[in-house]
Amino acid sequence: MPVKVFLNEDEIPRQWYNLAADLPTPLQPPLGPDGNPITPDMLAPVFPMNLIEQEVSQERWIDIPEEILEILYRWRPSPLHRAVYLEKALDTPAKIYYKNESVSPPGSHKPNTAVAQAWYNKQFGIKKITTETGAGQWGSALSFACSILGLECKVYMVRISFDQKPFRKTMMQTWGGTCVASPSDQTQAGRDILAKIPDTPGSLGIAISEAIEEAVTDKSGSTRYALGSVLNHVLLHQTIIGLEAKKQLQKIGEKKVDVVIGCAGGGSNFAGLAFPFVNDKINGAQIDIIPVEPTSCPTMTRAPFVYDHGDVAKMTPLLPMHSLGHNFIPPPIHAGGLRYHGLAPLLSQAIVEGLLTPQSIHQNECYESAVLFARTEGIICAPETSHAIASVIREAKKAKEEGKEKVILFNFSGHGLMDLTGYEKFFSGGLMDYALPEEEIQKSLKSIEGLPKPQTLKSGKW
Amino acid sequence: MPVKVFLNEDEIPRQWYNLAADLPTPLQPPLGPDGNPITPDMLAPVFPMNLIEQEVSQERWIDIPEEILEILYRWRPSPLHRAVYLEKALDTPAKIYYKNESVSPPGSHKPNTAVAQAWYNKQFGIKKITTETGAGQWGSALSFACSILGLECKVYMVRISFDQKPFRKTMMQTWGGTCVASPSDQTQAGRDILAKIPDTPGSLGIAISEAIEEAVTDKSGSTRYALGSVLNHVLLHQTIIGLEAKKQLQKIGEKKVDVVIGCAGGGSNFAGLAFPFVNDKINGAQIDIIPVEPTSCPTMTRAPFVYDHGDVAKMTPLLPMHSLGHNFIPPPIHAGGLRYHGLAPLLSQAIVEGLLTPQSIHQNECYESAVLFARTEGIICAPETSHAIASVIREAKKAKEEGKEKVILFNFSGHGLMDLTGYEKFFSGGLMDYALPEEEIQKSLKSIEGLPKPQTLKSGKW
Repeated sequence: MPVKVFLNEDEIPRQWYNLAADLPTPLQPPLGPDGNPITPDMLAPVFPMNLIEQEVSQERWIDIPEEILEILYRWRPSPLHRAVYLEKALDTPAKIYYKNESVSPPGSHKPNTAVAQAWYNKQFGIKKITTETGAGQWGSALSFACSILGLECKVYMVRISFDQKPFRKTMMQTWGGTCVASPSDQTQAGRDILAKIPDTPGSLGIAISEAIEEAVTDKSGSTRYALGSVLNHVLLHQTIIGLEAKKQLQKIGEKKVDVVIGCAGGGSNFAGLAFPFVNDKINGAQIDIIPVEPTSCPTMTRAPFVYDHGDVAKMTPLLPMHSLGHNFIPPPIHAGGLRYHGLAPLLSQAIVEGLLTPQSIHQNECYESAVLFARTEGIICAPETSHAIASVIREAKKAKEEGKEKVILFNFSGHGLMDLTGYEKFFSGGLMDYALPEEEIQKSLKSIEGLPKPQTLKSGKW
Repeated sequence: MPVKVFLNEDEIPRQWYNLAADLPTPLQPPLGPDGNPITPDMLAPVFPMNLIEQEVSQERWIDIPEEILEILYRWRPSPLHRAVYLEKALDTPAKIYYKNESVSPPGSHKPNTAVAQAWYNKQFGIKKITTETGAGQWGSALSFACSILGLECKVYMVRISFDQKPFRKTMMQTWGGTCVASPSDQTQAGRDILAKIPDTPGSLGIAISEAIEEAVTDKSGSTRYALGSVLNHVLLHQTIIGLEAKKQLQKIGEKKVDVVIGCAGGGSNFAGLAFPFVNDKINGAQIDIIPVEPTSCPTMTRAPFVYDHGDVAKMTPLLPMHSLGHNFIPPPIHAGGLRYHGLAPLLSQAIVEGLLTPQSIHQNECYESAVLFARTEGIICAPETSHAIASVIREAKKAKEEGKEKVILFNFSGHGLMDLTGYEKFFSGGLMDYALPEEEIQKSLKSIEGLPKPQTLKSGKW
């Protein structure tokens, strides 16, 4: 029985898939501070124009430049595994497959877009890229990509994760990147927050503000900002995951996937695996597609679909998305990459359109699932990935109850070797499950009062 | 240009290669405390008999049981990469290939034998395995293997590494293993050392004593000890690395390897890659085969070929090997896996026979090499592996000076994501190079005075 499926280098997908071309209703545009749609020019101080063009593209298939493929070949195509040992432990009739994105040098899916973004920035003549990072996966990936392509990299890392994961900084430094805890005293946005809340654990929203500020205030014009998730072009670069998975399933004669699962913070690893299957669903296939989030940061399951900023300092355009409000500071759970108030517009819209069925899960159930996975499949997952695994286990148990031989596919988005503090707390019984009180969400949502509202979907039309 | 070469599952080697069958002169036997060769029976309290049989086997090829292969398939065959980016940075005419053993779930080559040993123990009815670990790679690998096979695992981890790498314990725990710092108060051997040297950094020799003591004093008879290197059967299990590498080189039409390099502590990762090539050399091929060690623990380059114990408490038989003396406590360098006083008898004999040309390198040069590798090839190596990379860089520069298009192959034995403390010290300039004074070696060698001496090699005969 094959337990993993490889593709050869010449079988790697040579185009990314753009879901924007296929959504039943068009995406609503990002808005500027005046409430009018922003133009590409307005984003030019933040991103290079070649990526802005990708961000607004309506092309279904976008060619992957050969030089990017050459870098991705270092670890791609990533293996597809069948989780035969987990299946056995669960005594489920379901077949469980996972795409193993932990095999990249930084250990997650993040380099898929880090390499692409660094490459496009370099093509555009940019010398330095700034960014934020939550758990550190993205900051490590961008440091890695910049190192390979000879660019400078500066990373603002959310304070709580910076403290929980002291070695992430060294990892980035080994790849030549510079990492500081956010909020920092290096930006106005950071200083403002520190003055108000000196002991804040930080948030991705704050770190984004700092990174954008450093990019746009560089007078030489050779610095740009890169975002590790949320935006259309970032999700686009990740679709190589799902496109590879399809080829791999085809190779072993697996014709139909019943359930597709991934964890979702900003949404990029989930989208990367799921969007090619969302396409199938749009075209009539019966598939349950499940993005999973922490109960403590319930963007998909409890937050409204609104226009909101991607960051605390309101430096980003207004994006049409599910949001808990840009001031929301999520509880200090260990899945740092899922501590984000917003959600990718493409993913938000797929939820609005009824194409996805989001779930939220508490962190203790996630760690229990992670430990079961480690003791059966053998790989220690990132705390973010544990949310996907917990959902897979629920689905596999459901398949057993229903007596159905379902095919479940999920994204093993990253390994947890840099995130063992959370496991340690779990083993010592010190992990808390945070159920966010409704009044906290409502309080946080006050920050979006007065902002423009997106159109609502009625009978399949805006 | 292919940057990595895979093999399919059906191309995996199905036999291990046993160098003992091909050495020009036979191995000298392990001796008991009375100076007489030990019999298999005498090892029975320590190892299961099926592994003892393998330890003394003279068969050239030994079948790999199908069930072991099924577990190895989870990450094997491991990829062979061409280090095109390092080559470019060095502007060398040499072609550099590396076997990437970091893709196993625990992140090193160690599971190759951990899985095999756990499987043979289980076949023999054993329920619990005890072991030592230096840097933590071996302890993690055995915990992983025991988890997969449903055995209990207890790991004695050298104190200095336990303190430097706090997350290794959690990693083992995630796989269900128990890890304690050695010397511990759980064994007589540990208590004796602590009474003499309370603040000792520990050593592999001490940890081995503790682990063997726990195994042989278990009255139920269902506990055995496993060693992560040194012994013939351990090196045997690792030869899958070199056998795969040969197939991969053949696949891309690379006919001749000029230099084979690996780091060597006990010697298992080196032997795993190199022994199939040592065979070629015995049969007349021109190959430089280079095991590399830290200058601070110069077992191969400065220690005599003697009979010595593998551990401090003299619980192991006397083995014919290069040894700094079983009381030797190496300086606290970061390459914990290379802090061992002895060396595998098979490897020691290959040195005596003139088949290998050992090197020693200081740790700052190793970390410089590791950082260059990370910034070009993209993967952060373990401190142990950095010794191999430093030697590769020397050889690649030599090839440039000589203007020769040499083919260099090395073993990328493990990643360094669990070992970033050393990198941090390197970046802050806090790493010391230890050149061991000759009088320290001589002092340490007093511990072997009075032990039997091995025969010496004269004109190709003992």
